[in-house]
Amino acid sequence: MIAYAQALELLLVEAAVLPAEWCRSADACGRTLAEPLRASSTLPPFDNAAMDGYAFATSGEGLAAGSEHRVAGQLAAGAPSPPDAGSGVWEIVTGAALPAGLDCVVPLERVERLDAGRIRLREAAFAGQNIRRAGSDIAIAGEVAAAGQRVDPALRMVLAALGIERISVRRKPRVALLSTGAELVADALLPLGPGQIYASNASYLEASLHALGAEVIANVALGDDAQAFATQTRRLADQADLVLSTGAVSMGSRDFIPAGLQATGARLLFHKAAIRPGKPILAARLQEGALFVGLPGNPIATAVGLRYFVVPLLRAMLGMPAETPLRASLAAPIRVAKGLRHFLKARLRQSSDSGLVAELLEGQQSYRMGSLLQANAWVALPEDADEWPAGALVDALPRDAGGGWFLD
Amino acid sequence: MIAYAQALELLLVEAAVLPAEWCRSADACGRTLAEPLRASSTLPPFDNAAMDGYAFATSGEGLAAGSEHRVAGQLAAGAPSPPDAGSGVWEIVTGAALPAGLDCVVPLERVERLDAGRIRLREAAFAGQNIRRAGSDIAIAGEVAAAGQRVDPALRMVLAALGIERISVRRKPRVALLSTGAELVADALLPLGPGQIYASNASYLEASLHALGAEVIANVALGDDAQAFATQTRRLADQADLVLSTGAVSMGSRDFIPAGLQATGARLLFHKAAIRPGKPILAARLQEGALFVGLPGNPIATAVGLRYFVVPLLRAMLGMPAETPLRASLAAPIRVAKGLRHFLKARLRQSSDSGLVAELLEGQQSYRMGSLLQANAWVALPEDADEWPAGALVDALPRDAGGGWFLD
Repeated sequence: MIAYAQALELLLVEAAVLPAEWCRSADACGRTLAEPLRASSTLPPFDNAAMDGYAFATSGEGLAAGSEHRVAGQLAAGAPSPPDAGSGVWEIVTGAALPAGLDCVVPLERVERLDAGRIRLREAAFAGQNIRRAGSDIAIAGEVAAAGQRVDPALRMVLAALGIERISVRRKPRVALLSTGAELVADALLPLGPGQIYASNASYLEASLHALGAEVIANVALGDDAQAFATQTRRLADQADLVLSTGAVSMGSRDFIPAGLQATGARLLFHKAAIRPGKPILAARLQEGALFVGLPGNPIATAVGLRYFVVPLLRAMLGMPAETPLRASLAAPIRVAKGLRHFLKARLRQSSDSGLVAELLEGQQSYRMGSLLQANAWVALPEDADEWPAGALVDALPRDAGGGWFLD
Repeated sequence: MIAYAQALELLLVEAAVLPAEWCRSADACGRTLAEPLRASSTLPPFDNAAMDGYAFATSGEGLAAGSEHRVAGQLAAGAPSPPDAGSGVWEIVTGAALPAGLDCVVPLERVERLDAGRIRLREAAFAGQNIRRAGSDIAIAGEVAAAGQRVDPALRMVLAALGIERISVRRKPRVALLSTGAELVADALLPLGPGQIYASNASYLEASLHALGAEVIANVALGDDAQAFATQTRRLADQADLVLSTGAVSMGSRDFIPAGLQATGARLLFHKAAIRPGKPILAARLQEGALFVGLPGNPIATAVGLRYFVVPLLRAMLGMPAETPLRASLAAPIRVAKGLRHFLKARLRQSSDSGLVAELLEGQQSYRMGSLLQANAWVALPEDADEWPAGALVDALPRDAGGGWFLD
């Protein structure tokens, strides 16, 4: 049986980066940059006042405390400066452009207003004070964000500030979902018959895939029908980048996917990995081009397959860097089976000394969703040890596919 | 000038929890539960097999290694059991219901198939093994999630598994945005005139508010027009739960909001707080009912006002608990002005000993967005000290309003 790292590698070498497409900056949150983003202009675009106050031309000399000055007029924000604004003293508001020649801004509260449009300085002032220089925030052609970066509200703001109307992003991965299992009832408004359960894996996958920035192009329930599997897989293989199935990949009597894939001419990448839960996971390249990942049907095995195979795959397709796990110390010892990589539902919290502690939750069985609700993390225990003492440092990833941590 | 904690308190006492409404579970990701969610049924709904294999009726006695048995038939998943299935030996698949009387599941790989439908056990088997008991994951009427919890993919999955088609969530907060400043150009396709800049605060607020689960019902540019402010504020005050403005709350010549609000009969909650950046922040209750928060116009002052006033306010409106900051140790000493609460752009990372370290970024000035792009956190330094040594433990919140941490 193949090890986790090897199985993942076999999948990732098949990942092609998706093509780039243009997207309005206003619609780009959650999309991934296809190219490094360089500033097309400077921020600020021009020298401007950092404070409401008075701008002076001091020829680099500054001004003495108590000095008196006649105010020539007012410099408005967002309007051209008067032609004579390069010398003298001007009332100015925060953000208003500072005409060439003015080299010092004195805030309102450091000025005494006299009559006849005159003012007196309460303190000495220095050339260059309270001025924001053009380009001092973002320089022209400077790299604002790297390729593979997710557009978030801060980047959205900078795109707006730079006047960038459209950006080049990766096309959204198109994912098709196939659920197997005759016992599944997809409609919550239908009552359950004997032996039936409500379908839940597809809901989890769909919500998680949206959070990752993927598009779910199909969500089909197949029952235990191997023929429907073959038909749907062929139909979806040239529309989807990735076909994800749940269930029917183990060795039971209704586990028709391994043979069904073979019959369609798919090239198997691996079947079964030395992991727990989710050992029967399968990956293939369909003849029509899409990748195929067969997730086991137990909900936690589905979640693990998503988090530890599909998320890295989709990140690679989007040109995103691999995730870096956090390190946390185990709150309690645990014993596991050597030779398997264990993925465990965990709750990460901060200890009093600011370090991170991982509590492995009760109810690790792969059918138990209640403990997934309590979890905010997955802890991965590598294959080479079976005894993990309290305090051992382990790798953790955020529970959810979007990649953000929710920590107490 | 009022302290941060007092200012926030004056705002939060005005926060009314929004009314509840029904939402389809399928559409509920990102919504907030209005009531504790109790399980309307158990999970699993019935005793079922944890493995593909054979189910036995052992009357609690278990089975000896090497014992031979005749298989009566197959128990399918999702179908009623045969009437005689409570005794004898049955082939069973993972998840199939275990009829009353069968008390032991032996996995396929521990069984040798003989001829004439007979099997032999490779190992002894124990009553109760490989059985998932009804209710062992989620018990009926148990609290699955607390009121105020955000629906995420894991909760979405459990809602599906429980067959819960609709849930009670808080109505989305309705937020109206008013941007002031004659220098702002909102359309990136227009060239900038002298002294003009592209509007960016509204983009930041809109993207952040969406991430928080709020609805942005208006996004209006007012220029420096006090009359338009009064008109729009009156128009929006009975449609919005919160009116958010940017700019025009300081003491300059075009800072018309404080007086403008007074003229509309608004009740001022506070104006100016002892914080940096963002001191001129203002909050009021509009005569028509909505709350009003006037954010200063500098982009980082806007972001701080959002993160440290508006996010807590919206969380309160949604019935969410207050956020718990993480504690991180300062990477380098810093000196600040005593008496102000400082909110600093920071990068949190994990040190080699698993503790969290906060690097305060270069470029803390309130006009600098470039450093916000580098940040993943805000560090809050309280008012009572001006010297912060390296290694001091400080409070940090995730940079973005959605509340998730992106940590290296």
